[in-house]
Amino acid sequence: MKLNKNADTRILIVGLGLIGGSYAKALKKKGYHVSAITKEQKSIDYALANDIIDEGTSAVDAGLIQQADLIVFALYPRIFLQWIEENQQYFRSGTILTDVTGVKGSVVYEIQSILREDVEFISAHPMAGKEVYGVENSDDKIFENANYIVVPTEKNSQEAIDLCLELGRELGFRSVSTLSPEKHDEMIAYLSQLTHCIAVTLMCCHDGDHLEEYTGDSFRDLTRIAKINDAMWSELFAMNKEALLAQMDVFYEKFEELRAALREDDMDHMRSMMRLSTERRGRFDK
Amino acid sequence: MKLNKNADTRILIVGLGLIGGSYAKALKKKGYHVSAITKEQKSIDYALANDIIDEGTSAVDAGLIQQADLIVFALYPRIFLQWIEENQQYFRSGTILTDVTGVKGSVVYEIQSILREDVEFISAHPMAGKEVYGVENSDDKIFENANYIVVPTEKNSQEAIDLCLELGRELGFRSVSTLSPEKHDEMIAYLSQLTHCIAVTLMCCHDGDHLEEYTGDSFRDLTRIAKINDAMWSELFAMNKEALLAQMDVFYEKFEELRAALREDDMDHMRSMMRLSTERRGRFDK
Repeated sequence: MKLNKNADTRILIVGLGLIGGSYAKALKKKGYHVSAITKEQKSIDYALANDIIDEGTSAVDAGLIQQADLIVFALYPRIFLQWIEENQQYFRSGTILTDVTGVKGSVVYEIQSILREDVEFISAHPMAGKEVYGVENSDDKIFENANYIVVPTEKNSQEAIDLCLELGRELGFRSVSTLSPEKHDEMIAYLSQLTHCIAVTLMCCHDGDHLEEYTGDSFRDLTRIAKINDAMWSELFAMNKEALLAQMDVFYEKFEELRAALREDDMDHMRSMMRLSTERRGRFDK
Repeated sequence: MKLNKNADTRILIVGLGLIGGSYAKALKKKGYHVSAITKEQKSIDYALANDIIDEGTSAVDAGLIQQADLIVFALYPRIFLQWIEENQQYFRSGTILTDVTGVKGSVVYEIQSILREDVEFISAHPMAGKEVYGVENSDDKIFENANYIVVPTEKNSQEAIDLCLELGRELGFRSVSTLSPEKHDEMIAYLSQLTHCIAVTLMCCHDGDHLEEYTGDSFRDLTRIAKINDAMWSELFAMNKEALLAQMDVFYEKFEELRAALREDDMDHMRSMMRLSTERRGRFDK
């Protein structure tokens, strides 16, 4: 199967929130036929009224599922697993499934192990987001400067991997690449989950009320992601527990190293850490 | 003394780097007579060629010092102390001195205690900056969205405090306020120094080479300030050691709280920390 514009390829989005809605918006603009199944009828109503989808329903509509060539699951991890268990009998043979889940090891293998043999699940992680929710905030521009990672296992066909990479390019991602589930989870634990842990921790340190007027850009930048969807992120943390704990341990150790240097007036050591961070961060700006 | 535009008030900047240069730029635009003394002749040449100052020298010019009504010290803390010790005989009686130093308790009292009785030092902290250095990067727009804090002690006159507040307004700061040296240092330890510690630590955790292509906005935001002037910041950390260690301890404890919640699968506790951080961070956006 190949992606085909001009309504030949029918794409079904399951879960029409911020990411699902942004997928729909981007793909419909490109000329694909886009349908949606989501929990709330008002999300469907909004998406239809704003030309984000071609059709949709808040019911699990067997007809809509069977028409789909490609189904994108934009659900919380546990709901995603449950949905597959309950509704996979409706898939048309040969349908390709993909997802947007932010953790992989604890999701991909389980989905693939319970899935019918005649459909294929190729996992992907669009590393894009906003601190707002719902289809009302969907915005395909969030993909422009972002990375899209396809996360295949040995169960995946090259055809499905290629299709999924093509989907990332069609969505408009700056960078499209592949990683194993294990490498993905390690990377995400460090680059995304640990940073969210830090931002949350920093905001929990003090009641910031009297500090607001002194708060500068640095503090705002470090805490922007402290506005967090607690239901989703606690689930993502728990589903990537070992990898995240390992990254928290590394951070903890390095933080203690800096703290000890300050405590012991070891200026050289403080400065060597600062020079290392400056050199490494500088490479991002190139 | 009051600030008087149209070249009646002569302002001398000692230390023409990023902040000193940005002060000069803002004040000259406003119509003040601005002179500068700095170490490197090439900084003076640049500032003269780009209309940032009216006159300047790389020598400690007694004439220039004596003509000044207001002197702004934009030097590293230890060099600032040393400069006062060596050159205070040149001040004209009645001159007002101010500074831009990022720590206060370990600076203000010492300066005031060694200073001649016939001049007055009123300390201030412009909470503005950039990750670049030197007069070549000076930019008075960095003050627009920033906070300016006057840090008086009981040795200061109301007249000097008012003058210093007026200076902050003339520079174009969004917010101008006063704090005691102790409150200032506690606030800066949390809002600025701790955030820099975290950014440095985060960059020191791993060699990011293979991670660059996956790095999203969150990680970039949290590590922007990891590009750090190690000479200046290690000095600022050391000069605010007790306050910063106290803030590092609070962070350490809260981070361990989140880590323990994850380790023990205590979803409720993780979520309560996330809800607290979301609620507190939300107040910044108002």
